Amino acid sequence: MNSDPLQQAGENAWQDTKHVHSSLLSITYGCLVEQLVKDFADIEAVNEITKRMGSFIGKRVCDDVLSHAQVSKCENVKEALQITTKVGFRMMLNIQPTLTTTPDPKIFVLSFPENPLSSNVEIPTELNDIAYSNIICGVIEGALELLRYEVKADFVKEVVKGDHTNEIRVEHIRDIPEQISDIFET
Amino acid sequence: MNSDPLQQAGENAWQDTKHVHSSLLSITYGCLVEQLVKDFADIEAVNEITKRMGSFIGKRVCDDVLSHAQVSKCENVKEALQITTKVGFRMMLNIQPTLTTTPDPKIFVLSFPENPLSSNVEIPTELNDIAYSNIICGVIEGALELLRYEVKADFVKEVVKGDHTNEIRVEHIRDIPEQISDIFET
Repeated sequence: MNSDPLQQAGENAWQDTKHVHSSLLSITYGCLVEQLVKDFADIEAVNEITKRMGSFIGKRVCDDVLSHAQVSKCENVKEALQITTKVGFRMMLNIQPTLTTTPDPKIFVLSFPENPLSSNVEIPTELNDIAYSNIICGVIEGALELLRYEVKADFVKEVVKGDHTNEIRVEHIRDIPEQISDIFET
Repeated sequence: MNSDPLQQAGENAWQDTKHVHSSLLSITYGCLVEQLVKDFADIEAVNEITKRMGSFIGKRVCDDVLSHAQVSKCENVKEALQITTKVGFRMMLNIQPTLTTTPDPKIFVLSFPENPLSSNVEIPTELNDIAYSNIICGVIEGALELLRYEVKADFVKEVVKGDHTNEIRVEHIRDIPEQISDIFET
């Protein structure tokens, strides 16, 4: 039994789910990105679409992650990011990024040496501006939006671009106030 | 220890590889198919592209599957399909289709009740002609091509279309003769 309940929840969440070979995901994702690059000459548009897809996924898996973490809401954005890294990433990608705070209380950094999405990927120099794994940033933004935190997540380091590790900078933009309509929905 | 060496090889292959949550694959694949449907009005073109992507994947993972099965070549197409189902499918998708022969020695059937690629997928009626998981047929065709068997693989039953199980019909078209150039390459 792990002494950190969230870490244990992440482990349990992983055990509870069905798995596939990670290279099947990385190849399928590679096909998706390649198709988007063919469709849109503008790399910024590709980056935006992969982020939007990620946001859709993040919102979709959020409830599942919360139920595994045995919480229904978070006290603050840091707690939401702890659940995202210790339960969400562990459950979906079988990795657990290190969450670091910074002197600026609105800025957090997630770092993880291994990214299953981009293993064996080589980016041609003409696509240097691509945020290849932007879908992960979208997942973080989408999941946190559902938890009522607007954040902006962006890769600042990527192994696939020659960095020694992967780092995502998460900026807390604002808390999303509860709407009267939301109260009626719950 | 399993008494069937191929089954054991499949189990070992699965243990040796890195895994991710299967729903991440099914959602990513769903995004890919959706993008292709947007790009090509013709569903037949989508079916062809997903099969071609699968063929690329099949060729790419073939060596890995063979090394796990501890064989370098196959005696006949049935043996190639046995390795594909017992080692390849097990290693990549964590499922093991049942391989059935038919009265026609050129026709084989792979059946599997669960398809991780299409779990939680609903196909709108206007896309009824889509061979949603055609990428799997492509993987079979690509892997067998590398093993020198030209086959044609097609879904004949799909749970996602209301059938009680998934079935792929594999037709052995011909053995692919070894080329002089291939001998020099090895």
